[in-house]
Amino acid sequence: MKFKIAILGSGNLAWHLAPSLENAGHTITEIYSRDIRNAEKLAERVYVAEVKDDLDFSESEAEIYILAVSDSAISELADQIILPEESILVHTSGSVPLNILGYSSAAYTGIFYPLQTFSKIRKVDFEEVPFLLESEDEPSLHKLKKLAKSLSPLQYVVKSKDRLALHVAAVFAGNFTNHMLLKAEEIMARQGLEFEMLKPLIIESISKSLEIGAKKAQTGPALREDLSTLDLHYNFLGYNEQLAEIYRMVSQDIMDSHL
Amino acid sequence: MKFKIAILGSGNLAWHLAPSLENAGHTITEIYSRDIRNAEKLAERVYVAEVKDDLDFSESEAEIYILAVSDSAISELADQIILPEESILVHTSGSVPLNILGYSSAAYTGIFYPLQTFSKIRKVDFEEVPFLLESEDEPSLHKLKKLAKSLSPLQYVVKSKDRLALHVAAVFAGNFTNHMLLKAEEIMARQGLEFEMLKPLIIESISKSLEIGAKKAQTGPALREDLSTLDLHYNFLGYNEQLAEIYRMVSQDIMDSHL
Repeated sequence: MKFKIAILGSGNLAWHLAPSLENAGHTITEIYSRDIRNAEKLAERVYVAEVKDDLDFSESEAEIYILAVSDSAISELADQIILPEESILVHTSGSVPLNILGYSSAAYTGIFYPLQTFSKIRKVDFEEVPFLLESEDEPSLHKLKKLAKSLSPLQYVVKSKDRLALHVAAVFAGNFTNHMLLKAEEIMARQGLEFEMLKPLIIESISKSLEIGAKKAQTGPALREDLSTLDLHYNFLGYNEQLAEIYRMVSQDIMDSHL
Repeated sequence: MKFKIAILGSGNLAWHLAPSLENAGHTITEIYSRDIRNAEKLAERVYVAEVKDDLDFSESEAEIYILAVSDSAISELADQIILPEESILVHTSGSVPLNILGYSSAAYTGIFYPLQTFSKIRKVDFEEVPFLLESEDEPSLHKLKKLAKSLSPLQYVVKSKDRLALHVAAVFAGNFTNHMLLKAEEIMARQGLEFEMLKPLIIESISKSLEIGAKKAQTGPALREDLSTLDLHYNFLGYNEQLAEIYRMVSQDIMDSHL
């Protein structure tokens, strides 16, 4: 099942999604961006009939319209977009409920949420991207499943409430782990130490955690309730109050989680 | 260069270090633990002449004495241990300074700190363990380098002050990332969702971070300063005030770190 698809947005997700959809045999009919230059940049990555910065899609041949924009832009775009009959409008957000698309001119609405981290400068293997799907219309859900399946073997049908929980968990699992690595990098750099030294520890920590579960995998001064080391570390971080406070709170939460 | 080595301690590190030292051709002369039963358990993993729960090593044939005990026990053991002449006493801690061994009966002192996470239930590949070494005595430092080299290609000579910074960074990079994964697991479990769904995201987040650096790798609602999603997530976590507060603080720190 091959689809004609319009992409709205030109950010990190759209950047990778458009070429992958094309590679999977679908046709990108239009790329929309508020700033036409961004749409043009993305259009260099795929064959596309039209780039545009207006929301009149009444003449579009697409069946599926993918809103790959920031959460805060979804509602406005959904309200303003002019769609042909029988079209399916989906958004790609982890946190925005399905019903936000309810006032749009779309015949059907749905969610097409790729649970992955996307940066323009790094290629993404869509085979490793779980797609979280939702629609109240069975035929539309079926089509979204087919579309997801053309990109990845991992698809899940998830209700909006569960998707929010999942997105919160994903922020901890992805963004927050990455932020802890940034803080580690900064602490090392400040002392003139090579971050490289920490890489084996990072790789082993994550591998162990995924294999035996994070609870059993935990080690370190907070788990041991080694208060004098915790104090030493807290004082060491005195040059950055906010960082010291994060150290204190996360350490406290480790202790509380392992009672 | 093969050494005769006494191990003091029977925790996660000693558990893996003793057999690895033996495999590398060294001889474990004694295993000490405050609780002799723990020493006996570890002695089942290696050939060892003596297990003991007293600190009189005056008759020991070992040259190197490794304190693989919790940070808080180091000072007391170092003060009480009775060592033969010309012996080298080292501890394995990331945070305790070298001079804490200064009042011991050891002729020479040093640090032999493996920068890795150790759990008894998971095998560790010592080839992937960086050893951080320190000694004020050149011949002792040379021996510690040889000893580390027999286990791993990764050795660094690091002063106590830098080692503390490194240990703080290691807590962020290892323990805290693992704790973020635990929180993600718990959020998923509470909603009846499979943690499995998050694994591709976790693997990609860490791989990306290690490859392009955590700063460039960051994505998510905090980076986008998407305040309405942050609010939504914060409110979702209302069932656990401490967790919500961690969400708020780390998100704030992500925003502040990417100004």
